[in-house]
Amino acid sequence: MTKVTAQMSVSLDGYYAGPRHDGEGDWMASAEAAAFFRVTRWAIDAMAWRERQGFAGGEPDVNSDIIAETFEAAGAYVMGRRMADGGEAPWGDEPPFRAPVFVVTHRPRAVLHRQGGTSFTYVTDGVASAVEQAKAVANGKNVAVAGGGSLVRQVIEAGLLDELELHIAPVVLGSGLRLLSDDLTLPDKEAIELTPTRVVHTPQITHIRYSVNGRAPLVLDDRGSGGGPAEIYSA
Amino acid sequence: MTKVTAQMSVSLDGYYAGPRHDGEGDWMASAEAAAFFRVTRWAIDAMAWRERQGFAGGEPDVNSDIIAETFEAAGAYVMGRRMADGGEAPWGDEPPFRAPVFVVTHRPRAVLHRQGGTSFTYVTDGVASAVEQAKAVANGKNVAVAGGGSLVRQVIEAGLLDELELHIAPVVLGSGLRLLSDDLTLPDKEAIELTPTRVVHTPQITHIRYSVNGRAPLVLDDRGSGGGPAEIYSA
Repeated sequence: MTKVTAQMSVSLDGYYAGPRHDGEGDWMASAEAAAFFRVTRWAIDAMAWRERQGFAGGEPDVNSDIIAETFEAAGAYVMGRRMADGGEAPWGDEPPFRAPVFVVTHRPRAVLHRQGGTSFTYVTDGVASAVEQAKAVANGKNVAVAGGGSLVRQVIEAGLLDELELHIAPVVLGSGLRLLSDDLTLPDKEAIELTPTRVVHTPQITHIRYSVNGRAPLVLDDRGSGGGPAEIYSA
Repeated sequence: MTKVTAQMSVSLDGYYAGPRHDGEGDWMASAEAAAFFRVTRWAIDAMAWRERQGFAGGEPDVNSDIIAETFEAAGAYVMGRRMADGGEAPWGDEPPFRAPVFVVTHRPRAVLHRQGGTSFTYVTDGVASAVEQAKAVANGKNVAVAGGGSLVRQVIEAGLLDELELHIAPVVLGSGLRLLSDDLTLPDKEAIELTPTRVVHTPQITHIRYSVNGRAPLVLDDRGSGGGPAEIYSA
């Protein structure tokens, strides 16, 4: 059965990149990029990632296996407009996706066909429609939400995400673009419950995969009542 | 050798409690409390926690073992003023710490002696002094930063923390009090590097323990350059 999945590399404080680059000067020299390369270092070093990018070398380790598995599991992608725009030039004639990509945008545009099985279809009627269209062509594989962060939040908020995998890098960045940021709004005393289904730990990165159960009320568990834990943290 | 440690239960989006209760009405009925009890549920259910609180029952599982180990490892505590104030009544005559506690505050106050080995010493010359005083009496055990979040951040920022353990609950809260929040400020292109030293996974909670290596510059790793990963996420 087709699942809707997302995965992202984040710092221990939840950032997937540094503070957004203002557009002046070289992105590669920005604080945004520096933090992005820190949290994705594990992937950039991995053989399976490098192979998709057309680079030689890399480590054939468990991290590489996870990247290979993630690419292999995806039958179609959903992507934010800024990511698609930003990637268009650097991905070149043969982007790493090798599957149909549905770009959520306000600007209509003809389908862009690339080599190696990647195509970009521009969807102007919203994220749910993009997910539906991706499901229709995923051929039983997963629909992967490729990012960026704001699209992942939209998919979570809309209740469309089935599985979330975070790759948690052992670093505190202090500022930047946060995946599960305050922009993800939930009603008071309501949460999104998940179930961890796999934890893979390496010195470089901790991979935690969750299935998303959906919204649930936060109900006070009074087995701890009697005053004990109530105030033990506040400061 | 005495290490300075901290551990806290957080949601997947990094919150240790819900949005701060404004002081009107019952804290136990607040959104702050509802989220706090969700992320600490694993502990409240654990036998070792309940024992320290004087409650019966609980699960004698690996989560309980981790709590027992954490209490056992601490020879002294450092605590924020609000936590100490908030806990004073509910902890009662025999607080769960059973060791000297050093409270960082601006208000001088005589040492408060409690039963079972717990004492509260009020330190008015800053967090570094409180840590030093705690080290001096920890008897070779660890100095545990008991919380709350703002004190943990201060200790991290000051470079005083040796070990951080996060207990990550499988829930997204969307808002609240965040441990590694934007209040933890670092210079541009500088990060705090950590090394994961232990991961323990249970269905209720994922425990990740890190040793804190300290500040390090974010250096662009150009092995991935050539355009590949540079823009793959932004949206």
